[in-house]
Amino acid sequence: MNAPRRIAIGSGDAASLLWIGAGLMSEAARYLVSPSGRFLLVSSAGARGPADGIRRALAGRILADLEIDDREEAKNLDAVSRIADAALAAGVRRDDALVAVGGGVVSDVAGFAAAILLRGIAWNAVPTTTGAMAAAAIGGKTGVDHAAGKNLLGAFHPPRTVLVDPAAASTLPDRDFRAGLVEAFKAAWIGDAGLAARAEGGLEKILERQDASLLDLLAGAATVKARIVSEDSREGDRRRLLNFGHTLGHAFEAAGDYRRLRHGEAVAWGIAAALEISRELSGLPEADADRVRETLRRLGPFPEPERSAEALAPYLARDKKASASGIAGVVLESIGRARIVEAIPLADWLAAAARARL
Amino acid sequence: MNAPRRIAIGSGDAASLLWIGAGLMSEAARYLVSPSGRFLLVSSAGARGPADGIRRALAGRILADLEIDDREEAKNLDAVSRIADAALAAGVRRDDALVAVGGGVVSDVAGFAAAILLRGIAWNAVPTTTGAMAAAAIGGKTGVDHAAGKNLLGAFHPPRTVLVDPAAASTLPDRDFRAGLVEAFKAAWIGDAGLAARAEGGLEKILERQDASLLDLLAGAATVKARIVSEDSREGDRRRLLNFGHTLGHAFEAAGDYRRLRHGEAVAWGIAAALEISRELSGLPEADADRVRETLRRLGPFPEPERSAEALAPYLARDKKASASGIAGVVLESIGRARIVEAIPLADWLAAAARARL
Repeated sequence: MNAPRRIAIGSGDAASLLWIGAGLMSEAARYLVSPSGRFLLVSSAGARGPADGIRRALAGRILADLEIDDREEAKNLDAVSRIADAALAAGVRRDDALVAVGGGVVSDVAGFAAAILLRGIAWNAVPTTTGAMAAAAIGGKTGVDHAAGKNLLGAFHPPRTVLVDPAAASTLPDRDFRAGLVEAFKAAWIGDAGLAARAEGGLEKILERQDASLLDLLAGAATVKARIVSEDSREGDRRRLLNFGHTLGHAFEAAGDYRRLRHGEAVAWGIAAALEISRELSGLPEADADRVRETLRRLGPFPEPERSAEALAPYLARDKKASASGIAGVVLESIGRARIVEAIPLADWLAAAARARL
Repeated sequence: MNAPRRIAIGSGDAASLLWIGAGLMSEAARYLVSPSGRFLLVSSAGARGPADGIRRALAGRILADLEIDDREEAKNLDAVSRIADAALAAGVRRDDALVAVGGGVVSDVAGFAAAILLRGIAWNAVPTTTGAMAAAAIGGKTGVDHAAGKNLLGAFHPPRTVLVDPAAASTLPDRDFRAGLVEAFKAAWIGDAGLAARAEGGLEKILERQDASLLDLLAGAATVKARIVSEDSREGDRRRLLNFGHTLGHAFEAAGDYRRLRHGEAVAWGIAAALEISRELSGLPEADADRVRETLRRLGPFPEPERSAEALAPYLARDKKASASGIAGVVLESIGRARIVEAIPLADWLAAAARARL
């Protein structure tokens, strides 16, 4: 195994350490953090292989072992409550820690459970999807959905450790593998033009799941995210850059009942729509917009989203970044540079959704 | 109205401002904080009078108005979920704020709901019991109970404002009024010998609910708590001093199914037990122990707690401050001075529970 890369995220109470490298899973015991040495393992059926690896690595130190449903429709307060029940029944103490092994839903739900158990215990994330490797858990957002919308209940509670090993995603179906990479490219597009160029050039190797190319993209994306999150650890201005493609992405996802589109696929369409807005509001060169679309096409093809104003408007209106005058959004100035625009009118979002193309 | 006293608690993200004075309720609109100007009102049946006062003060700016069950057995994650449902159905946004009007259960539950709504919205506490005026909401602990024990799920999420007006407790039944004062005296005993002496001397006037004497005790208790919390805003060493009387207090309360004893009454017995431990571990002078017991007797009489080891041990073992070698506790060195003792063995706690007298 080559030496893993170490990426520090945030600071103080909100500090996480992300380790990334091929083969890390087998040495998980060296990296996962628990003040007491004891762990609560939370995983999903889709992550049984990686969860078994973590079980072996932490043998004899697992206080409770719980498998949860990792579908978006199961990402609710009940799921958090069940983790809390299991943890408390097992006698969890403040110095114990949780390990979430799975995709974004597992880390969102389990991280939120860690946030509220005994008013907060330490936790670790072992992402098993490309989407979660690129995005989830970095920055400390945890939470669950509500009938009124996505991620409406939650907490800021960064994991102590995020362990990224491409082997954990080795059995991920191709559609999920590709959809998850949208989040990694998103990070490159908003914050690292060099990474974007390298990853676009190496896309074939990435799609063939070659470790070196995949690690370069994932580590680069995590570095962009870590830099932005470290600049402000809550929902400040800089951090909102990470929402590039997510305002309409969330609406596309919700309008399709979380079934039609994978999260990453919805974000791909959200990015395509944001390109339309970016041309008008931040002068994004057409050549850059074409490059982004070309990469998204190669990651796809992605199913068509529901684009009607009737379907999308209610979700946009409930966006956490909505205010009386519009909804804040992220626009691209050029590949590698993004900025926030406060209060883009609902009508402009809907027009962009209608025009978005890949 | 005399000018209210202003007590600053914590700092930065965790800063609260406590206002205390007779007649503040009628000017609530000047003190309660909402970035948007809009409020979610959460109150209880027992606090209808004060809640009406807040309704008048905030007329036209109340987004949702919800009455919750304020019994300890209703302090659970479902109650938080119902507040979240109502808030989201009303279209709550990040810049809206919540106001909790009621006793400790209302502020614990509503504050926790504020903590997880949209990953945290601002909130304000208007305590309507002496216990809540002296203790709840100051310092940012919010949370709910679980089958496994009290306050096992929660968050640190300090209110922006705490508004203490004795008028809000004017219809409080005498038993609750007296039980709640235990928390105020607790603060004096651990941190302010002068306040303890004044309040002991003025106890008759306090029990007659004379504003000046009551305000002096409540403001003094809040000042002690604010000083301790400001020294460390989470569950650090200093802050644990506030748990004086609470380790066994929680066990007494739980062993009586939260019905036999009011919270303050259980804490009174917990303090009586802690006096036993304090004589041995910190050399508390007998005269000081007698003074504390005398005051507790005058606040009572309080019902006898369940003292059997069988009933208490399970709750002690689940205490959030439990570790493998025992349970951390707070001992009194003299009136006005307390310190933390790490890992007091379970057997010592049980012996103190058996010996505690008032």
